[in-house]
Amino acid sequence: MYRIGIDLGGINIAVGLVTEDCQLVVKKSVPTLSKGRKAADIAKLMCETALSLIKDANLTEDDIISIGIGIPGAVDKQSGKVIRVANLRLDGFDLASFFKKYTKIPIILDNDANCAALAEAVAGAGKGRKLALTVTLGTGIGGGMVFNRRVYSGFNFAAGEVGHMVTHVGGRKCGCGRRGCFERYASATAIIHDAKVAVRKHPESKILELSGGDIHKISGRKVFQAKDLGDEVAVAVVDNYIKELGEGLINLINIAAPEVLILGGGISNQGEKLLKPLRKYVYDRCYGTNLIPMTEITCATLGNDAGIIGAALIHN
Amino acid sequence: MYRIGIDLGGINIAVGLVTEDCQLVVKKSVPTLSKGRKAADIAKLMCETALSLIKDANLTEDDIISIGIGIPGAVDKQSGKVIRVANLRLDGFDLASFFKKYTKIPIILDNDANCAALAEAVAGAGKGRKLALTVTLGTGIGGGMVFNRRVYSGFNFAAGEVGHMVTHVGGRKCGCGRRGCFERYASATAIIHDAKVAVRKHPESKILELSGGDIHKISGRKVFQAKDLGDEVAVAVVDNYIKELGEGLINLINIAAPEVLILGGGISNQGEKLLKPLRKYVYDRCYGTNLIPMTEITCATLGNDAGIIGAALIHN
Repeated sequence: MYRIGIDLGGINIAVGLVTEDCQLVVKKSVPTLSKGRKAADIAKLMCETALSLIKDANLTEDDIISIGIGIPGAVDKQSGKVIRVANLRLDGFDLASFFKKYTKIPIILDNDANCAALAEAVAGAGKGRKLALTVTLGTGIGGGMVFNRRVYSGFNFAAGEVGHMVTHVGGRKCGCGRRGCFERYASATAIIHDAKVAVRKHPESKILELSGGDIHKISGRKVFQAKDLGDEVAVAVVDNYIKELGEGLINLINIAAPEVLILGGGISNQGEKLLKPLRKYVYDRCYGTNLIPMTEITCATLGNDAGIIGAALIHN
Repeated sequence: MYRIGIDLGGINIAVGLVTEDCQLVVKKSVPTLSKGRKAADIAKLMCETALSLIKDANLTEDDIISIGIGIPGAVDKQSGKVIRVANLRLDGFDLASFFKKYTKIPIILDNDANCAALAEAVAGAGKGRKLALTVTLGTGIGGGMVFNRRVYSGFNFAAGEVGHMVTHVGGRKCGCGRRGCFERYASATAIIHDAKVAVRKHPESKILELSGGDIHKISGRKVFQAKDLGDEVAVAVVDNYIKELGEGLINLINIAAPEVLILGGGISNQGEKLLKPLRKYVYDRCYGTNLIPMTEITCATLGNDAGIIGAALIHN
């Protein structure tokens, strides 16, 4: 038996066939073409792509346990309705009922960050652990806590907004309306912002050189590269980033005590270069260090496939 | 059938008989006399008090489902051993084995803050809710998350240290070794500290008058009283306290999305005087306000009995 996972993005719809032991067998990607497309068009495209994938694999609907869909926004898991999506016109759309017109395979939805967290916890860096917290360092910071193969979503499906934990009361303005949110200091966006500020003061920094002299081309990767070259400006930016990231992660460990904390998103591609100083910062400061077993800190391993695999793993 | 709950404190050992629907029928308190007393003496006293309570109620051991003990420190629930207690010489003591010498009733331990949180969630302010977070505002700030009548304790029994969530990176020094912890800004200790600082600048404040002119007699209650009298210094101290408390609670709601957030500890005796401005502060700023159902915020209802009732409710 297999499961279908659908990762709905603003640019592509990625659909995959996943085995019962979480292996992605085959995947197919089609453009979302969100501009001008109505909710029903997007839903139909997802449905058709899924059904064609099943057919192409010489399978029938009877071989498929469920179709899970990861939505880049808020969903009502119980009813199978989309609540709110930022960039697609799907607000309020009843995806589960729509799919029922075309297939008898059970449909289930969840938020895409939850799907990625579920995949990493069950089939990726958290494999074999009961309690995994994934923190994704991207434009913002997302979080997903997985207990026993299930995403914890709170009473209103809104849990895991770890990026909107204030670590600097009165600090930098955040899009959520508060000031000082963790993601304003420790997301990929934040390290780029901090590097730009530093480079404006120190245009001699290798960060700028590696970015072809164009401040707008600075990325997290280039800041880490410049640090490797011994650039002092980059060293200071990364050290501060480790501190800010560490402070937020220690908070989460003190609150939730996960067995493993998995870092995802572009910054996590730094692997040990990120993990080594981060572990030192965190383990020196966690509550009860030396008295109790410590949360393992590691990086995500599934890359972009986490969205598809996680969507396939959603269950009620 | 009944359960026994034991609340082990530095000053008293409180033992109670609790019905299956969480009513405290009878309780008995004996001095802990911790100075000079050995672990075995304290354990024996707890055991004897529990057994005499059963006898005095004309019950036998067969009428008792379990004896739960709330320990003011870290425990290993699985083995029934105390890990670490700050003020009693019980570190490493195998309480479960000790009790087995005197009674066949199953013994189970948990941290006392977890017990209080369990009692409030199941039988107090959170009655009927599946997902309750209790935050206790005392000398420090403790937390206990209860899902379906079970305290969430993380993989290492160390979860819920919500007081050691940093809300001011680089801020006030905390006993845990970090700077800027939530409890340094929003515990009962914090409001007293802030009132003292304010009163030193403004000795004309009614806070000092209500404290008999003795700065060391300032309490949270007196600050709220002075605010009620229109004292401007007290208004500023309370407003700032609401902001600091609110910021931390919003963080916890954004992360954990509990159905109900229950405030305990001395400060929570202020009831609506605390809750009204706090709810406004929190609801204006939570992530997704107006889009999703909001966490209810309320005060604990069981008072000091929460420790006994919660200990009786512990289960594996």
